[in-house]
Amino acid sequence: METRIKVLGFAGSLRRGSFNRLLLRNAVELAPSGMEIKTFDLAPIPPFNQDLEHDPPAAVREFKSLIRAADAILFVTPEANYSVPGVMKNAIDWASRPYGDNAFKEKPAAIMSASISSFGGARAQYHLRQIMVFLEMYPLNRPEVMVPLAAQAFDSDGRLIDPKSRELIEQLLAALRDWTRKLNCAPALDDG
Amino acid sequence: METRIKVLGFAGSLRRGSFNRLLLRNAVELAPSGMEIKTFDLAPIPPFNQDLEHDPPAAVREFKSLIRAADAILFVTPEANYSVPGVMKNAIDWASRPYGDNAFKEKPAAIMSASISSFGGARAQYHLRQIMVFLEMYPLNRPEVMVPLAAQAFDSDGRLIDPKSRELIEQLLAALRDWTRKLNCAPALDDG
Amino acid sequence: METRIKVLGFAGSLRRGSFNRLLLRNAVELAPSGMEIKTFDLAPIPPFNQDLEHDPPAAVREFKSLIRAADAILFVTPEANYSVPGVMKNAIDWASRPYGDNAFKEKPAAIMSASISSFGGARAQYHLRQIMVFLEMYPLNRPEVMVPLAAQAFDSDGRLIDPKSRELIEQLLAALRDWTRKLNCAPALDDG
Amino acid sequence: METRIKVLGFAGSLRRGSFNRLLLRNAVELAPSGMEIKTFDLAPIPPFNQDLEHDPPAAVREFKSLIRAADAILFVTPEANYSVPGVMKNAIDWASRPYGDNAFKEKPAAIMSASISSFGGARAQYHLRQIMVFLEMYPLNRPEVMVPLAAQAFDSDGRLIDPKSRELIEQLLAALRDWTRKLNCAPALDDG
Repeated sequence: METRIKVLGFAGSLRRGSFNRLLLRNAVELAPSGMEIKTFDLAPIPPFNQDLEHDPPAAVREFKSLIRAADAILFVTPEANYSVPGVMKNAIDWASRPYGDNAFKEKPAAIMSASISSFGGARAQYHLRQIMVFLEMYPLNRPEVMVPLAAQAFDSDGRLIDPKSRELIEQLLAALRDWTRKLNCAPALDDG
Repeated sequence: METRIKVLGFAGSLRRGSFNRLLLRNAVELAPSGMEIKTFDLAPIPPFNQDLEHDPPAAVREFKSLIRAADAILFVTPEANYSVPGVMKNAIDWASRPYGDNAFKEKPAAIMSASISSFGGARAQYHLRQIMVFLEMYPLNRPEVMVPLAAQAFDSDGRLIDPKSRELIEQLLAALRDWTRKLNCAPALDDG
Repeated sequence: METRIKVLGFAGSLRRGSFNRLLLRNAVELAPSGMEIKTFDLAPIPPFNQDLEHDPPAAVREFKSLIRAADAILFVTPEANYSVPGVMKNAIDWASRPYGDNAFKEKPAAIMSASISSFGGARAQYHLRQIMVFLEMYPLNRPEVMVPLAAQAFDSDGRLIDPKSRELIEQLLAALRDWTRKLNCAPALDDG
Repeated sequence: METRIKVLGFAGSLRRGSFNRLLLRNAVELAPSGMEIKTFDLAPIPPFNQDLEHDPPAAVREFKSLIRAADAILFVTPEANYSVPGVMKNAIDWASRPYGDNAFKEKPAAIMSASISSFGGARAQYHLRQIMVFLEMYPLNRPEVMVPLAAQAFDSDGRLIDPKSRELIEQLLAALRDWTRKLNCAPALDDG
């Protein structure tokens, strides 16, 4: 009997129709066998204040406990001003604090992004990777999922219709599952 | 007769005793002749929501109008998780939006940081520089002001007591003044 | 009477049919009124050895003197392994040394890149921008010229046929001319 | 019976008295039980020319075969102009080519650096980490070994005398050994 990999995913945008929120929703549906993806909405997370880090707001406490309960993390990040959005970074800052209580520590991770440009959020992803060094995370190298021209990539129901992107997401999630199992020295799953 | 350079400075931390807030306060006092530094407190800026960008909260409107009124910008940034803090980035995201209404556009800028590590916030500064490419700003190259070991750098009244750092800040601010004047093709000031 | 802006351009690849060498050649032809672009071939530059920096090889001496004679620098950089190619970086390392004798110091600069991927070399450009902070250069922010899908962008004679890229190069070079003049407090040219 | 982890280490400087070459030499001696470190000298590697990538010079062929034979890679990188030196990057470019024949693929890795500044080469390390994403390597997150003020860190025989740095190197190498074993699902060694 095999155990399912539990993934926590969250998107770094509060915009209702955010392409990255849609991307996360699609990822949940594209999760491969042996993986389930839970999501968390960053909306209730207030601006980080270190004076409160030892007694954080309820939303932060919930966020941190979901991260801890997960086997792996899925970051779905927009790109804002050639970097990670403040909303995304702010949530990361809360969850990594106080010092010595970093909820992300040693979690495997995958990154996805979407943007209306032809780069699909690449610049945010490389900044996020540097952040992960401090967080002591293990991000996947490949595939890199950067959905370009996001305004054309979803239908009116929010379904990702770009077949190349759908395929890349499936590959990413299968790779995250296998990477997580590898780091636990569990055999890769037979997808057959 | 010469005109004074008006600078807007802000610090990317909400912690009451933040070293970077102290650093900004010290910079105000160290401003050279021909420069005055106004400050803005990021505390009332809520998490960015693009759905509200055309009708932003009052604090954001005030922040943007102070940026526009300034000749130059002074970013005082902590380093959090090897990058710009979410609180700092979030304020930048608001002020750069909506598209076509980026308040930072073509402003000269200087960066300062303080951290308890021996790096003094360097990693945040290089991420901030990449952000400034999109913002179309003109950051100074030198001097780089990264106050290391910040827990020892201030006295109990919050006065920066590290003489090397005080001198670097004076050099940075004089350089910002001259760089701002140069970009306006005004002659450098005689400091005599 | 106006003076022409003298630009030195070089491409970071030794491959004979390099897309970035072609790009540079096309840029020479697209130079606007008021600018002339000279080029330098990096082929004879050997690997940097600091033991020789006070008496560098002839090719390095020539490279440095051409940089010094130029009003502005045009970097044409491939992307290799998500960063600046070793060949490009090596030439930069020679020209910046010995300490106190950095030929690039305070030069305005523009960057162009081409790659076979859809990113057109973006990742190399942001690393190059961080390098320029140490070099104390003044790079343009906009436009960013990153020619994607380079294998399709040139005809068999090496002429850049992608109209969007040609237009961006013209804009970049005109912006470099105006930026160089601005930093010298000379009026922008009337292109009429 | 346990197998020893074979590491290939190389330093990105050709200067005879290079602090990074010394650092590598010290690392060889500090290798923990269960690890042996072989070194390669980058001096004979010429500037990369893609026209020759299918029939590379003998030094490159040897470099690539040593990389392939190693279980893990130790990068010892100076910082030059806020990034990886051209000499280091050039060697990486050769070893990663031609496409599909990247010798570094899926190797675990550790990074060390030394510099005369107080940062110890940090900026080069973060650029190298982005390069490793493309190389599909698995770098350690911690500890980060950045030997500052390198001119004072070695005695006249080239022995690293800074006790903090010696300890960090021992921790880094033990962590590399354990990380390499973990990725192969072999149990960690009892160091007892």
